Amino acid sequence: MILVLKSKATDEQIDALIKELAAIGVNVVKIEGAEKSILGLVGNTAQVDSDHLMAQDFVESVKRVSEPYKNANRKFHPEDSIIQVCDKTVGGLDFTMIAGPCSVECEDQIMTVAREVKKSGATMLRGGAFKPRTSPYAFQGLHGAGIDLLLQAKKETGLPIVTEIMSLAHIEMFRDVDVIQVGARNMQNFELLKVLGQCDKPILLKRGLANTIEEFLMSAEYIMAGGNNNVILCERGIRTFETMTRNTLDLAAVSLIKQKSHLPIIVDPSHATGLIDLILPMSLASIACGADGLAIEVHNNPKVALSDGAQSLTPKQFEEMMAPIKAQVKFSGKNL
Amino acid sequence: MILVLKSKATDEQIDALIKELAAIGVNVVKIEGAEKSILGLVGNTAQVDSDHLMAQDFVESVKRVSEPYKNANRKFHPEDSIIQVCDKTVGGLDFTMIAGPCSVECEDQIMTVAREVKKSGATMLRGGAFKPRTSPYAFQGLHGAGIDLLLQAKKETGLPIVTEIMSLAHIEMFRDVDVIQVGARNMQNFELLKVLGQCDKPILLKRGLANTIEEFLMSAEYIMAGGNNNVILCERGIRTFETMTRNTLDLAAVSLIKQKSHLPIIVDPSHATGLIDLILPMSLASIACGADGLAIEVHNNPKVALSDGAQSLTPKQFEEMMAPIKAQVKFSGKNL
Amino acid sequence: MILVLKSKATDEQIDALIKELAAIGVNVVKIEGAEKSILGLVGNTAQVDSDHLMAQDFVESVKRVSEPYKNANRKFHPEDSIIQVCDKTVGGLDFTMIAGPCSVECEDQIMTVAREVKKSGATMLRGGAFKPRTSPYAFQGLHGAGIDLLLQAKKETGLPIVTEIMSLAHIEMFRDVDVIQVGARNMQNFELLKVLGQCDKPILLKRGLANTIEEFLMSAEYIMAGGNNNVILCERGIRTFETMTRNTLDLAAVSLIKQKSHLPIIVDPSHATGLIDLILPMSLASIACGADGLAIEVHNNPKVALSDGAQSLTPKQFEEMMAPIKAQVKFSGKNL
Amino acid sequence: MILVLKSKATDEQIDALIKELAAIGVNVVKIEGAEKSILGLVGNTAQVDSDHLMAQDFVESVKRVSEPYKNANRKFHPEDSIIQVCDKTVGGLDFTMIAGPCSVECEDQIMTVAREVKKSGATMLRGGAFKPRTSPYAFQGLHGAGIDLLLQAKKETGLPIVTEIMSLAHIEMFRDVDVIQVGARNMQNFELLKVLGQCDKPILLKRGLANTIEEFLMSAEYIMAGGNNNVILCERGIRTFETMTRNTLDLAAVSLIKQKSHLPIIVDPSHATGLIDLILPMSLASIACGADGLAIEVHNNPKVALSDGAQSLTPKQFEEMMAPIKAQVKFSGKNL
Repeated sequence: MILVLKSKATDEQIDALIKELAAIGVNVVKIEGAEKSILGLVGNTAQVDSDHLMAQDFVESVKRVSEPYKNANRKFHPEDSIIQVCDKTVGGLDFTMIAGPCSVECEDQIMTVAREVKKSGATMLRGGAFKPRTSPYAFQGLHGAGIDLLLQAKKETGLPIVTEIMSLAHIEMFRDVDVIQVGARNMQNFELLKVLGQCDKPILLKRGLANTIEEFLMSAEYIMAGGNNNVILCERGIRTFETMTRNTLDLAAVSLIKQKSHLPIIVDPSHATGLIDLILPMSLASIACGADGLAIEVHNNPKVALSDGAQSLTPKQFEEMMAPIKAQVKFSGKNL
Repeated sequence: MILVLKSKATDEQIDALIKELAAIGVNVVKIEGAEKSILGLVGNTAQVDSDHLMAQDFVESVKRVSEPYKNANRKFHPEDSIIQVCDKTVGGLDFTMIAGPCSVECEDQIMTVAREVKKSGATMLRGGAFKPRTSPYAFQGLHGAGIDLLLQAKKETGLPIVTEIMSLAHIEMFRDVDVIQVGARNMQNFELLKVLGQCDKPILLKRGLANTIEEFLMSAEYIMAGGNNNVILCERGIRTFETMTRNTLDLAAVSLIKQKSHLPIIVDPSHATGLIDLILPMSLASIACGADGLAIEVHNNPKVALSDGAQSLTPKQFEEMMAPIKAQVKFSGKNL
Repeated sequence: MILVLKSKATDEQIDALIKELAAIGVNVVKIEGAEKSILGLVGNTAQVDSDHLMAQDFVESVKRVSEPYKNANRKFHPEDSIIQVCDKTVGGLDFTMIAGPCSVECEDQIMTVAREVKKSGATMLRGGAFKPRTSPYAFQGLHGAGIDLLLQAKKETGLPIVTEIMSLAHIEMFRDVDVIQVGARNMQNFELLKVLGQCDKPILLKRGLANTIEEFLMSAEYIMAGGNNNVILCERGIRTFETMTRNTLDLAAVSLIKQKSHLPIIVDPSHATGLIDLILPMSLASIACGADGLAIEVHNNPKVALSDGAQSLTPKQFEEMMAPIKAQVKFSGKNL
Repeated sequence: MILVLKSKATDEQIDALIKELAAIGVNVVKIEGAEKSILGLVGNTAQVDSDHLMAQDFVESVKRVSEPYKNANRKFHPEDSIIQVCDKTVGGLDFTMIAGPCSVECEDQIMTVAREVKKSGATMLRGGAFKPRTSPYAFQGLHGAGIDLLLQAKKETGLPIVTEIMSLAHIEMFRDVDVIQVGARNMQNFELLKVLGQCDKPILLKRGLANTIEEFLMSAEYIMAGGNNNVILCERGIRTFETMTRNTLDLAAVSLIKQKSHLPIIVDPSHATGLIDLILPMSLASIACGADGLAIEVHNNPKVALSDGAQSLTPKQFEEMMAPIKAQVKFSGKNL
């Protein structure tokens, strides 16, 4: 940990700080520069609060040298984490293909989509029962009934189900869900993350619209700090100035996270781009750069979808796309 | 509402859509262009779901002509909303000055700060009992005990208290709180907003780090749709590429929201800039462009603050700042 | 072209505008909505200036239905453009591999790198003779002498050379250069683009740090409007809030531009990420999503590079990377 | 200057670097941490190239402790710079009001606007003769004839003229111009900045759409490094995800630059917001937070303006706005 001091810092101030840090076992090395001095902190700096140091009015900046995440850090867990989901595994050499509608709308819809995507090679079924919508007047999901329909689809097809939780008040309803999704808007809903850290279900954590890679890993750390190591990350595009795509898919984040963390990471090209014609090329690119899976929206009749129809594939389009996707997965050395 | 059709749209497709819309009382006017045709939708288009239209594969884009928010819209409520908070009012000609520490830490701290900021002219006391921290290992607040300390400070000073809620599981603890704050990270925690829409307490809604002005107003709409019209907005900076300031304070949003909405809006220059030396100039700028109030972090001893010490003023700095702030408020025609 | 009118628009104002537009052969269809009216403009709207329409104080917004670029538009030129560069072609089924140092530094450096990258399979040699540096005190390039060294490397290896122009005052020095590069900072240096539009050399146009896809294509249009259709686009990352990578590589832009335009587009993963460990995965992703080539920084001794050493590969690292790159190119159906 | 080393750094590598730096008079202090070591560089580090250090493969990150700009730095020039423009001064206690049309269009237009804005209190006349337009098909300005018309307006009104240069090829035409403007798109057109550094005319340097505060000051440094200290900065909004305003006006940058640099800085609320109704509130906010002036677009007939009509005021609107602007300038302790 490095502190750059303001030029006005006095010896008394510096000595007092050194003494304070020594008391918690942190040694300080001082470097006097031409304009400003620098303090290097050595020892167990994980317990030192950057905010506290920044609050000293003679400190100009604080820079951590070590990453602030431990459980999610590949340094302390060099091999890939493999997450068990029913009879499937996420991470490692297995490639995960999650498919399904944005929202669960009715029995016919979800059963049709589930059968179709299973036939085309999907390994899990997604579908929203609780939907985060910008407008209070838009369709908000079928709630408990939606989860029941997903479970019915699982029963028939055997596909594990993935569905989003929006409030810890609903946690009981997710008892039989296989993977609980935390949406982008809740990535820093820390109270929700804490609760999910206390269950042992796999959590699919989506990156927030404006969250850095480090914040993303720190949110995984929240879940893991509670004892739940079954975290699957999901890159789904970040918000930038570009308006032609819905978001900007950050594939470099996928490769970088594979290097920094042992957690599996999948990509959601449907939300990332919002454009059907980009789903296949972004899927191929995701596989090529090391993603552990994909989550793709498929609707039996996108024209009447109650949400996100514009970016949903038909089962037929999904089936056609699966051929090049499977080929690329195989080429990249993974199994689907 | 305007639909731009793809050049491949067939007459059959267009006719089917026109018939469907007619069934819900929406009339369609068709304009045939050189390359593409356009449909203009007239009538009660609030009930038309853009997503549904975008999902038609012959539709290229959908543009709403009317704002999607109703309750928050100045068009339907031309006069400024005035929110009553104990014996104070927010909005209109009264200028609100909220001050206090980032986190409530102990009795001595909050009582000292409360007395001091009251003496300098603050009209409400802020302080976090539940703190959203990026790291699970950082101080998370005193929770219920923190709220009790705020209530004690209110009892002595008479200042109404403002404090952040992070989970609807805690709502009971906020029974006696005067203004419930929704933080930036929870601006789109829709389930929380719905619950807050069902109480009648004033809500201080902070803009999300990467949320547009329209999304901000739609989140206010969530609360108002539940029946609670006591919404106070708060601009606290958005996330951009600039790293020298903590966030980028968007003052144009303040003026624009004053034009688009009747709700009061205040500014938090402490979180927006993260730099003590910018708090006064940004406060003056906020007042000059029409903000209804300010929220400023003050700590009796920023050096030992458990969070955000670097951007907290001492009571003395706050007192000195209040002179130019009061002068600008008066110059801008408001009362403090 | 669609105009949404403010609710206060009067019939006189609307009629005057309709008459004005009729005079230039543009027909107007008026749709009266509940709150606001809409005008649809039909005919040759390319000659209508949006700014002029927006300036009418009864106009709320203007939306173009057709793309503002013509020469770069795939709609009017459905087949891929193939750009001839000496005995190589860019676009179509040929994959272009540009490699070389950020800056040309001395004869030994450029000759060594040229020989090595040629051996590993590069098809063109890059190297900066004029360098845009944020600091006036940093190395600015060898200028004319740098170009001479590139030409010498070309003579020996046969590799066509790509180098950046920073000022139209230097255009004479680029007489024998094979591909003239326009850097990100000059993407909207319109006077430079106009001059380049009047030569017939291939231009490698890099996307600006904060420029939209549409602006990028409009800058290509500037060059093409002057008569030079030999434009090669280059995605090199955009500026966002993320700081762990140098820029955010926007691969969706690559696929989208392939759909919207017939021009070839390559990717520069070195500048996009700034991190050596991301160059290979981002190269593979670029190929998988349809890029026509790559531009990669290679330096014989990155440790002593005068610029951008941190993101430069050694010739050995480049050679090792070429094996998986060639395999992915072949898998994706292209030739390298 | 601080270097964080990778954990794999060997003693040999570190010693070699220390020796190399010693040779140029830079001393190195080494701090061995638990995971990683840190090197602190002391001495004249301005001559050390960060890129060169980053290129060592055992270096993880490099952090400069001192600002990289010298001439623009308030630390070495504590008092405000005052720039003389004909009989006016920019900076210090004088407030500068630049007004005029986006583009010079014809004699009648520029003469009318010049007379009107002078009458209302403008202190300089702006008008574009060379216009950077996204589309090659849009009006590009009157060029030399435009400058002649500005000079004619100056002759009659006595107002110094400000106009934008887009290419160093045109520099001769700017012989009699009082202030040469460098537009946002050319903020990092370094070759142009170098040429302007060799004249002694005041330069109005606008911040680029996606440039940081530090890059902005480094571009000023380019001009000053050539010997021309007459630099006036201009904040005009940065590009963010918000689309309701044309750009996001960054007023915190104005206050921060006043602290970091001695150069005067003005604000352009017309380009920053793109909305007439925001020009007055953003002008007042700019004055309140310490801006040294404003640049506002005024057109005698915005409805027929050839560019940017939508954000131009009429002379009457400008006149009405000048009353509250003058009052705020006086209240903020400056003279207009």
